[in-house]
Amino acid sequence: MSHITATYKVFDQKGDLAKKAEGIALGLTIGSWTNLPALEKKQLEKHKGEVISVEELVPSADDNRYFSSKRTVGLIKIAYPAANFSADLAAILTTMFGKLSLDGEIKLVDIELSPQLEAQFPGPQFGISGVRERLDVFDRPLLMSIFKGMIGKDIGEFQQQLKQQAIGGVDLVKDDEILFDNELTPFEQRITTGVQTLAEAYEETGKRTLYAVNLTGRTFDLKEKAKRAVELGASALLFNVFAYGLDVLQSLAEDPDIAVPLMAHPAVSGAMTGSPYYGFSNKVLLGKLLRLAGADLVLFPSPYGSVALEKQETQDIATALTTQSQLKPAFPVPSAGIHPGLTPLLINDFGHDAVINAGGGIHGHPAGADAGARAFRAAIDAVLAGQTLDEAAGQQPELRTALELWGQR
Amino acid sequence: MSHITATYKVFDQKGDLAKKAEGIALGLTIGSWTNLPALEKKQLEKHKGEVISVEELVPSADDNRYFSSKRTVGLIKIAYPAANFSADLAAILTTMFGKLSLDGEIKLVDIELSPQLEAQFPGPQFGISGVRERLDVFDRPLLMSIFKGMIGKDIGEFQQQLKQQAIGGVDLVKDDEILFDNELTPFEQRITTGVQTLAEAYEETGKRTLYAVNLTGRTFDLKEKAKRAVELGASALLFNVFAYGLDVLQSLAEDPDIAVPLMAHPAVSGAMTGSPYYGFSNKVLLGKLLRLAGADLVLFPSPYGSVALEKQETQDIATALTTQSQLKPAFPVPSAGIHPGLTPLLINDFGHDAVINAGGGIHGHPAGADAGARAFRAAIDAVLAGQTLDEAAGQQPELRTALELWGQR
Repeated sequence: MSHITATYKVFDQKGDLAKKAEGIALGLTIGSWTNLPALEKKQLEKHKGEVISVEELVPSADDNRYFSSKRTVGLIKIAYPAANFSADLAAILTTMFGKLSLDGEIKLVDIELSPQLEAQFPGPQFGISGVRERLDVFDRPLLMSIFKGMIGKDIGEFQQQLKQQAIGGVDLVKDDEILFDNELTPFEQRITTGVQTLAEAYEETGKRTLYAVNLTGRTFDLKEKAKRAVELGASALLFNVFAYGLDVLQSLAEDPDIAVPLMAHPAVSGAMTGSPYYGFSNKVLLGKLLRLAGADLVLFPSPYGSVALEKQETQDIATALTTQSQLKPAFPVPSAGIHPGLTPLLINDFGHDAVINAGGGIHGHPAGADAGARAFRAAIDAVLAGQTLDEAAGQQPELRTALELWGQR
Repeated sequence: MSHITATYKVFDQKGDLAKKAEGIALGLTIGSWTNLPALEKKQLEKHKGEVISVEELVPSADDNRYFSSKRTVGLIKIAYPAANFSADLAAILTTMFGKLSLDGEIKLVDIELSPQLEAQFPGPQFGISGVRERLDVFDRPLLMSIFKGMIGKDIGEFQQQLKQQAIGGVDLVKDDEILFDNELTPFEQRITTGVQTLAEAYEETGKRTLYAVNLTGRTFDLKEKAKRAVELGASALLFNVFAYGLDVLQSLAEDPDIAVPLMAHPAVSGAMTGSPYYGFSNKVLLGKLLRLAGADLVLFPSPYGSVALEKQETQDIATALTTQSQLKPAFPVPSAGIHPGLTPLLINDFGHDAVINAGGGIHGHPAGADAGARAFRAAIDAVLAGQTLDEAAGQQPELRTALELWGQR
């Protein structure tokens, strides 16, 4: 039978995990079971939540510090029959973590959809290979950069920054997520100027660059706005999915007229993932759910910067985005705190099928963003050729400058 | 100048709150300031985030236990110019708590919109007085009840439960939030059967009851579905707003063809509010933001049940929903763990302009849900008449039964 399985980490005060699990499985489905008449049991059987497993864990030192009273820590796995909900993410979220999200310390750490249920979701429309095809780049991690401080700046500044980044050889350029529709750089003008600027850069370099314009505004206008963007030649869309809703992303992914890669930004998601005792694991929210909903590229805090995630969490996100499934894999984009000196570590940790995304690590290059991009590209080539960065810097002074400024790790 | 002010509770490792505040105010707006040329300063002035206040707090015993290293705890208040974002909740959330939500321990505890900005939001279309007019009940808290275990049950069961609750004198009946569109009780059939059943009950009792049908499904279908519901006679809509997005609720509230009260359910919100160190305060998320977006009634965990909020948090939600503003006030609906014996406490804590919402406290009455509802109505009348519940129970055996079963507090 089709179902979704949710794994919760619980911190139980009463010390009876099996009872807690049974309470969740019934409470979020048919309410009660034991005392039902046989006829009703037969009728409700297929709707009954099922406890799959209960595993007690040893509380961590952090747990013991956090809780003033004794807690029993454990992993509880429950299967919810798909017969109970419509096959949309809002219904699934409400079923498995609606009321339950309010029930004290409980964290949703994993989910698994049965194949029939998973097949009702689009997944990435382009995925890793589709994005690579659009760029004609198959043999290395991609390089992405971000506009620098565009609020209050005009379209001339936009054009100049975009050109510089593209000329330097980045594969993707994205809007800052806090750039909304505005008078100085309106949405449609960013797209048309972007198309023209990237065409000019292509003339010069023979290298394609995608620009992800920030899709913003009112929810019910987004599809029309995205279609208009595609008509105008937009090559990718950036989307603050957690300021809207996962189901909105899914609708964008499913629309055949919005045939460009979708880049999901993690803005606001920290409110749902930060605590070890509440909310979602990053693996579930940024990994599994974003892939189900159809993100082609997923940004998340890298383990290296000042706004950082634990390395294991970032690996779990990347695995959830790329592991074998009937859905296409999506690009992991570890972000924040990235500079050329981190390239060996990035490729070691995230492999070839990842996007290296830098803001300050490109714009902050003393010789400009184009030099910053070239330094990065040289660092990537060096790692793939089995060179050290120092060796490569011998032939590439822009990389040498970058390494002197930011160091290596 | 129009703006939004956000107050964050921060737990800083570096011990310099003023610097942290300045970093946020600049980082989420124009990036940098001090070294800008004078011309650029002039150009960017109106986009610059402003630190309004910085207040250091004494860490609580919990804080000291939770953090293994010393933290400086404080409240930081920042104003973001409305010039930086479009006037929609997705842009506002991304600006004030997008990237920042990912930046370690930081909680968004309050927001304030300048009047010009607030005026761009609909707020509740009915509000407290509009819901009261629809019910013709002005002089007491309202009484609401919930269907019991409808998953796997058919429309006959729905009809019978609805009739019983209405006959007993509840003002509102709501779907369970985990009841989605399904073959046994399809959305449209629930509405038409509800209309007919409540008309029959009105014939018998002369008392109106609103039924809030759960509006579910894909986001981009919701407006049409809601309009169809209204055409069919739906008297209210229940909405799992946090499984969708605040902006979706706003669009429902703004649509003149969806002219019925909107009831916001807190499902999934616990993932964003549970931790003292991450996410949103309940006052912001369930109070201020839901009122801005246009909820007419807002459910939240009462301070009395097993799934409980701290009393102060529930009071803060209720205040945010009802305090004087250019937006209509919304009904606070403290929920879970409610039984007739709590009525004096409920009215003391939440006043007359609240909804008393009971599930088990009505269905669990030994003489049936109608008796449960009558017991509640008797308890409410007693409190308003200045009687004790024991005095009232002398004249009302159904209340006496309820008090014997669930006690008083």
